[in-house]
Amino acid sequence: MDYLSKTVKGVFRNALDFLGEPEQFSKITKIVIKIALIIIIARLAIRLIDSIINKFVEKQKKSKSNIDFIRVDTMKGLMKSLAKYIIYFIAFTAIIKFFGIEVTGLIATAGIGGLALGFGAQSLVRDIITGFFILFEEQFGVGHYVEVDGVSGIVEEMALRVTKIRDFSGDLHIIPNGKISMVTNKSAGKMRALVEMSIAYEENIDDAINVLKEASEKLKSENDKILEGPVVLGVSNLEKSGVTIQVIAKTIPMEQWAVERSMRKAFKEALDDAGIEIPYEKNVIIQQKNNR
Amino acid sequence: MDYLSKTVKGVFRNALDFLGEPEQFSKITKIVIKIALIIIIARLAIRLIDSIINKFVEKQKKSKSNIDFIRVDTMKGLMKSLAKYIIYFIAFTAIIKFFGIEVTGLIATAGIGGLALGFGAQSLVRDIITGFFILFEEQFGVGHYVEVDGVSGIVEEMALRVTKIRDFSGDLHIIPNGKISMVTNKSAGKMRALVEMSIAYEENIDDAINVLKEASEKLKSENDKILEGPVVLGVSNLEKSGVTIQVIAKTIPMEQWAVERSMRKAFKEALDDAGIEIPYEKNVIIQQKNNR
Amino acid sequence: MDYLSKTVKGVFRNALDFLGEPEQFSKITKIVIKIALIIIIARLAIRLIDSIINKFVEKQKKSKSNIDFIRVDTMKGLMKSLAKYIIYFIAFTAIIKFFGIEVTGLIATAGIGGLALGFGAQSLVRDIITGFFILFEEQFGVGHYVEVDGVSGIVEEMALRVTKIRDFSGDLHIIPNGKISMVTNKSAGKMRALVEMSIAYEENIDDAINVLKEASEKLKSENDKILEGPVVLGVSNLEKSGVTIQVIAKTIPMEQWAVERSMRKAFKEALDDAGIEIPYEKNVIIQQKNNR
Amino acid sequence: MDYLSKTVKGVFRNALDFLGEPEQFSKITKIVIKIALIIIIARLAIRLIDSIINKFVEKQKKSKSNIDFIRVDTMKGLMKSLAKYIIYFIAFTAIIKFFGIEVTGLIATAGIGGLALGFGAQSLVRDIITGFFILFEEQFGVGHYVEVDGVSGIVEEMALRVTKIRDFSGDLHIIPNGKISMVTNKSAGKMRALVEMSIAYEENIDDAINVLKEASEKLKSENDKILEGPVVLGVSNLEKSGVTIQVIAKTIPMEQWAVERSMRKAFKEALDDAGIEIPYEKNVIIQQKNNR
Amino acid sequence: MDYLSKTVKGVFRNALDFLGEPEQFSKITKIVIKIALIIIIARLAIRLIDSIINKFVEKQKKSKSNIDFIRVDTMKGLMKSLAKYIIYFIAFTAIIKFFGIEVTGLIATAGIGGLALGFGAQSLVRDIITGFFILFEEQFGVGHYVEVDGVSGIVEEMALRVTKIRDFSGDLHIIPNGKISMVTNKSAGKMRALVEMSIAYEENIDDAINVLKEASEKLKSENDKILEGPVVLGVSNLEKSGVTIQVIAKTIPMEQWAVERSMRKAFKEALDDAGIEIPYEKNVIIQQKNNR
Amino acid sequence: MDYLSKTVKGVFRNALDFLGEPEQFSKITKIVIKIALIIIIARLAIRLIDSIINKFVEKQKKSKSNIDFIRVDTMKGLMKSLAKYIIYFIAFTAIIKFFGIEVTGLIATAGIGGLALGFGAQSLVRDIITGFFILFEEQFGVGHYVEVDGVSGIVEEMALRVTKIRDFSGDLHIIPNGKISMVTNKSAGKMRALVEMSIAYEENIDDAINVLKEASEKLKSENDKILEGPVVLGVSNLEKSGVTIQVIAKTIPMEQWAVERSMRKAFKEALDDAGIEIPYEKNVIIQQKNNR
Amino acid sequence: MDYLSKTVKGVFRNALDFLGEPEQFSKITKIVIKIALIIIIARLAIRLIDSIINKFVEKQKKSKSNIDFIRVDTMKGLMKSLAKYIIYFIAFTAIIKFFGIEVTGLIATAGIGGLALGFGAQSLVRDIITGFFILFEEQFGVGHYVEVDGVSGIVEEMALRVTKIRDFSGDLHIIPNGKISMVTNKSAGKMRALVEMSIAYEENIDDAINVLKEASEKLKSENDKILEGPVVLGVSNLEKSGVTIQVIAKTIPMEQWAVERSMRKAFKEALDDAGIEIPYEKNVIIQQKNNR
Repeated sequence: MDYLSKTVKGVFRNALDFLGEPEQFSKITKIVIKIALIIIIARLAIRLIDSIINKFVEKQKKSKSNIDFIRVDTMKGLMKSLAKYIIYFIAFTAIIKFFGIEVTGLIATAGIGGLALGFGAQSLVRDIITGFFILFEEQFGVGHYVEVDGVSGIVEEMALRVTKIRDFSGDLHIIPNGKISMVTNKSAGKMRALVEMSIAYEENIDDAINVLKEASEKLKSENDKILEGPVVLGVSNLEKSGVTIQVIAKTIPMEQWAVERSMRKAFKEALDDAGIEIPYEKNVIIQQKNNR
Repeated sequence: MDYLSKTVKGVFRNALDFLGEPEQFSKITKIVIKIALIIIIARLAIRLIDSIINKFVEKQKKSKSNIDFIRVDTMKGLMKSLAKYIIYFIAFTAIIKFFGIEVTGLIATAGIGGLALGFGAQSLVRDIITGFFILFEEQFGVGHYVEVDGVSGIVEEMALRVTKIRDFSGDLHIIPNGKISMVTNKSAGKMRALVEMSIAYEENIDDAINVLKEASEKLKSENDKILEGPVVLGVSNLEKSGVTIQVIAKTIPMEQWAVERSMRKAFKEALDDAGIEIPYEKNVIIQQKNNR
Repeated sequence: MDYLSKTVKGVFRNALDFLGEPEQFSKITKIVIKIALIIIIARLAIRLIDSIINKFVEKQKKSKSNIDFIRVDTMKGLMKSLAKYIIYFIAFTAIIKFFGIEVTGLIATAGIGGLALGFGAQSLVRDIITGFFILFEEQFGVGHYVEVDGVSGIVEEMALRVTKIRDFSGDLHIIPNGKISMVTNKSAGKMRALVEMSIAYEENIDDAINVLKEASEKLKSENDKILEGPVVLGVSNLEKSGVTIQVIAKTIPMEQWAVERSMRKAFKEALDDAGIEIPYEKNVIIQQKNNR
Repeated sequence: MDYLSKTVKGVFRNALDFLGEPEQFSKITKIVIKIALIIIIARLAIRLIDSIINKFVEKQKKSKSNIDFIRVDTMKGLMKSLAKYIIYFIAFTAIIKFFGIEVTGLIATAGIGGLALGFGAQSLVRDIITGFFILFEEQFGVGHYVEVDGVSGIVEEMALRVTKIRDFSGDLHIIPNGKISMVTNKSAGKMRALVEMSIAYEENIDDAINVLKEASEKLKSENDKILEGPVVLGVSNLEKSGVTIQVIAKTIPMEQWAVERSMRKAFKEALDDAGIEIPYEKNVIIQQKNNR
Repeated sequence: MDYLSKTVKGVFRNALDFLGEPEQFSKITKIVIKIALIIIIARLAIRLIDSIINKFVEKQKKSKSNIDFIRVDTMKGLMKSLAKYIIYFIAFTAIIKFFGIEVTGLIATAGIGGLALGFGAQSLVRDIITGFFILFEEQFGVGHYVEVDGVSGIVEEMALRVTKIRDFSGDLHIIPNGKISMVTNKSAGKMRALVEMSIAYEENIDDAINVLKEASEKLKSENDKILEGPVVLGVSNLEKSGVTIQVIAKTIPMEQWAVERSMRKAFKEALDDAGIEIPYEKNVIIQQKNNR
Repeated sequence: MDYLSKTVKGVFRNALDFLGEPEQFSKITKIVIKIALIIIIARLAIRLIDSIINKFVEKQKKSKSNIDFIRVDTMKGLMKSLAKYIIYFIAFTAIIKFFGIEVTGLIATAGIGGLALGFGAQSLVRDIITGFFILFEEQFGVGHYVEVDGVSGIVEEMALRVTKIRDFSGDLHIIPNGKISMVTNKSAGKMRALVEMSIAYEENIDDAINVLKEASEKLKSENDKILEGPVVLGVSNLEKSGVTIQVIAKTIPMEQWAVERSMRKAFKEALDDAGIEIPYEKNVIIQQKNNR
Repeated sequence: MDYLSKTVKGVFRNALDFLGEPEQFSKITKIVIKIALIIIIARLAIRLIDSIINKFVEKQKKSKSNIDFIRVDTMKGLMKSLAKYIIYFIAFTAIIKFFGIEVTGLIATAGIGGLALGFGAQSLVRDIITGFFILFEEQFGVGHYVEVDGVSGIVEEMALRVTKIRDFSGDLHIIPNGKISMVTNKSAGKMRALVEMSIAYEENIDDAINVLKEASEKLKSENDKILEGPVVLGVSNLEKSGVTIQVIAKTIPMEQWAVERSMRKAFKEALDDAGIEIPYEKNVIIQQKNNR
């Protein structure tokens, strides 16, 4: 009992001594000053970066005439808040340090979790970096018809972490940007409409080509979605039952399928009118009289 | 014998000295104070984070009108307990340090196991991070029809580590969230119903298109699951034995298959009534008289 | 010779001095005390963890009514021995340290082997972590019909490192748990039986649907494995030679195949009785008289 | 010249001084003692581990009645030599340290090679760890018919690093154990024999099923490799040209193919005897008179 | 209250002392000098590297006569700005160090984020390194027809991070350079046009080869896109219904398809004129009288 | 000028002082001694390892009677030179250290390159380790017919880094050993020859089996490449147009294809002689009179 | 103002003091000496390595008679410049160190970028190492017909980083050497020409084999590209409509296709002359009178 009471007393006396020691006190005041400085510097850094971003954006707006103002402002906001959070995080870790070496060591001790977290966060970082490049390099925009990572559709939303693409079937694909490597933009320029017509081996190829040429000219004059008139390329294949003739045209984006449908109808009717056979599958049959 | 007894005595004397030394005693009291401080700070930190989460959630609830209250409360609970466990873990590792440098060194020595554990835990961390984003970004919800990681079905349960999806065949897929990269949400908007009808090459295409248009209009008036009336697009393909005509409609989600079934039945009957041939596979046979 | 004898003498004298030095002696006693402390702490820690696990398990047993008691006890044993081995390992590495810095350095020197071992052990750790989650989250149980990692069958044994699944063909698949990512549990709820009947294009679709409906009702009344009566969905496909009509039912797990077999037999016989043709493949033949 | 001779003299004098210094001498004797201690400890450790392994193996032999004694002795030898080499390696690296810090630094300097070696050795370590688990968990044994890593055959040899499997075609597959993840053991229990018979759509299904049932019973009475008599399951498929009826049986391992062959022969002959048609592919031909 | 005021006073007094200490002052001036030196060195380094790049480029321009001047200047600019940013970054991190060890420690503390960022940035670095090699080694240029990473088309733009390729279908593929490993340049030399003609087994092979040779010679004289005249190679295959004869030619790049189309048309007409049969699929039919 | 000359003088004076200082001199002599010792030790180590390898090889030669002497000597040379280079490399890095800490630091500074080199060299190390195991475990030898990494052929050359395999088509595959994981040795034991004969459904199965058995016996007596006589297994499949009967035999390696060819010829002729039909594809034709 | 002027003065005074301190001066002279030494050593090292390479190459040239001198000189130049750049890089990093610890720390601070760069450069290093082995081991040479990484063609250029291969279609494949793992050299030895002839089931196999043997002998005498005369192997397959007979020959590299074409023509004509039927696809037709 005596020993215990002595111990307890000793503990309290030590605790009071610890906080009252002049060198400890001086240490604490220094820490307070440093923390104040860190907070001030952090705030100044945020303001500085904000104004740099503002200037950069203004310059961008002036230099590019056809710029998408809404996207620019979105990116400005994004970059500002990103910078803000990073600076706060750095300031926080710097301040935490002043509560003694224990905290640092503690993080070192907790290194296993940290390692795991680092690897986990890695995919988030990759999403954001890739998202930044897609926005910055204007690889595609909302409303474009694109193909990324094996799915294609109309871009509905572009965010820093994910891109949302709506399929023609109505499905909404939500793709983390880090999964996007190659982007295929199907709304950037003239699209090709391609139709292959098969005619029978018994028909004259030149006649068929002429019929298709006339149908192409008529179609071109009627359809203003066709930018470069349907061109009859020639014999693209000698198939099992017929000779294939290829016709291509250039159309405005997203209209290639409609143009192809018109071309198919027009060419089928033209060949019918000219009496040129579109062949069914043909087989030669040899009757073997005596069975083995 | 004499040597041994001397050794034993020496050991005990040393042990008592070790615990009785004043500097050792002072050291221990300091450690006790520090441990107490860590526990207090940890408790305060938990309270602080709890109130921050509460405020954040309240703000979210107000700003978004159509918010799913149950999910929000689930997430609040999740974030609170996550924060609690992390803080306890940090406090525990900080306290363990005071039982001497041996513990730290010990962990360093046990680094092989730690490395292995870190890599193993990594997949758990990734599951939780991805799960958090799915919940937070509202990529899908319980009851939605989705496709993730090659399986599709109705979402039955969303947890922080796994998502449970029930297939139409009745199978229950349990997917770790870390395996989910691209999400395809099939309940977010109008769905497309697509039917392709084949007519014989001998038939007139315009007649067939008209028959299908009339059938489409009738169907539209009878079926309120169809949001945008069936549209006859035109000649989508020239196949081996027939001309293919494509018809598409927009329906409410999950009803696209029922609509497609109605469309198929209606179109088949309409073409039959109009006497337009839906072709079987056709072959031209040439009899070769003299065998080789 | 003289030099050598002097050397040998010197060596022995040094050896005795080394062991007899008082500071060395004091050092050794301190080490002995510390080792004793470590062993005591380790034993206490094991007892503590054992009682924590016991309490946790009791609580679990009370809170969940339909719990699988055998599995719970298995897990209790597993967790206890896991904790025991980890604590022994930590204590062992801590003790080994007192035999001088050489051991630590030695391990550092042997770092190449350690690195290799760490990576090798990594897969073992992953197996155990995943195995723990499968058991803990009750993703599946012994006797369930599951599909994991490309193989499906009845679960015969679940262990911390491997899962054993018996295929219907009799093959026994032994899968390390770390290889299991997505689990498909095929025994969790109603299963779907799906049958597709093909009828000739010449037949009336409504008649066929009625025949199938009647057969479905009869089947439902006779077969108590069917939970939700066979529903005739409609025209699921327009195939080359026939119109496909889809019928689905819900059954108790593992009976979907038997139900499908009954449905196929009943529907085939019903269509035969009603004189509705189930079509063979049909071809239209056109004789071309004059060879090319 | 003078300078050089002075230098050479100086060098030799320094060399002699270096070896003759008393503190250097004392250092060397200490090193000699420590090396001797390491060797003694290493030898003791090997003996200790040997006896532990012996006891462990004896215990295993007693507890499991149906144990494979040859394999147990193989593993005992393996574990002993593994332990021996590891201890020698640790002792060697510990001794090498006493030849000065240079050796350690040297290994640090040679870190590039070490890194490469570590990664290279990694695959060897993984082979051995996996091999150990396969042996220890008795996943399969010599003579079993297994499928691992895409090849299947009879296990001819199991070693710590590789497993040798002989294909039915005679090929000998030598697989590093690290490549083995999922093991499919095809000799662990009853195997399934499955035969599907096709009958014409014109035939009565019940008659066919009865014929197959009778043939199954006859076969069961004649063939003692069949463990569970062939069971006629019912209509497993409605194919293009016939109705498929499935029959399964359970056989002793490795005899499923022979049983399937008997079943096929018996069922074919039974259906022939009963005059039930096994259909050839059937086609309906429609003659179209007027060519397009 | 008294204690608090004393504390506050103490804090301020300490703060002033801290900034007024002569050793602190001397420290600061040294830091200022060092920062100034770093900035000066950085600026000099940039100038130096600029002039080195200039000289290198001039040398390149002289040594290679057929060099693409625009690309060279692009690369010059790129390399200059790259060097500039790297030097600024190094200088910045060097300066940041002088604001005390806290910053360094802070970065160390923030190591988790750093690790993640490092891995994220890694893909950007790989893009740029690969892009540099593609430009530097002149693997392809704008306007070339290439195949990279599974897509082929005309190169529209080559940048340091991405390459843009336009497909013949009009799609624009945007490929990060890091994804480009093997490059297939289809505009670097003569291209091959290959046509395979099938003749009936009943025809004489030599006759057919002669007909094709004559047609080839005629075609060569008419078509200046053909660089090496169509060569009849011989019997490339004995197919189910005919003997295949292969003809190849060499053409100017991008014209191989047009040449192939001309060849197909010419050969088909030549064989028709010579009365050599291009076979349809042939079947021998054996009538089996008595059904089984 | 005055300042500069003073500087230059100062520099030279310092340089001389530096080399003339007695402590520096003593340092250098010590380094020289240590370098000499390292070289001596390295030479001794090489001799030691050489003699160990010699003894090991001699022992191997005696213990195994059927050993391949050329390969053993190749491996002896390989192991000797490998050991020599490793020791030289270690000695070199140890010596380089004595030219001051700069060299070590320098390597640390050059760590980026080192990292890259380490990863690059990694694949070389893996090649050599795998190559060593293939040679040491005698997985295959020159002249064996093997399949590794997707290519099969006769082994022409086995080296420490690559294995050369000649395909039957004449192609020479050069495979880095690190790419070899599973080895399939096709020359290690009896090979299986397998032939499947199809007979018409109308034929009697027992008759066909008897005919094949007689043909097998005749073949066995004529062909000494057949080790285990062709065994008629039974009905292996019920195909669309015929009943398949399987016959297998065991042959000496590399002769399985020749034996299969003989079996096919013999069985075909035997069935012809016995008048048992080998069926062509059979179709049942149903004439549908009234077109839809 | 006063305080400021005092500060500025203080700064300047400190700067002068800093440079004027004797210990600082002595430090600088030592650094100058060390830098000079490093440069001298670097230059000597380059000369040494150059002469070593020269000697090595001379030795190689003498020992191998059929060596490719141009390649040897290319490699000599490559190795020299590689060594030169590595030494310069090491010297540069060593010198940079003397500008104070700041530079080292700076690089450590810039570790994130370094990590990224290291990983990026890794692929370049791998390219060069693999390229070196391909050149050194003479796996293939310019003009050889090879298959690497899924593309095959004639090697046009071999460089340290990339290999250029021209496809028969004219495409130029540019492959980074690091992507090359297995090399298939198709110009190293005799190539196989393989032709399979199909004869009708009704024909006598021995007659057909004799006809093919005679045709083979005739062909061998006429065609000097055939190294080993066409050998008739026997019945390689029993196909649906015919018996397949295999004939193989060995030819000089790159002529196997031409030889195959000759063989096909010769064999087809020989079988025609002998009146042996090369079968078309054969079908047995069974007329089913009564429709179901």
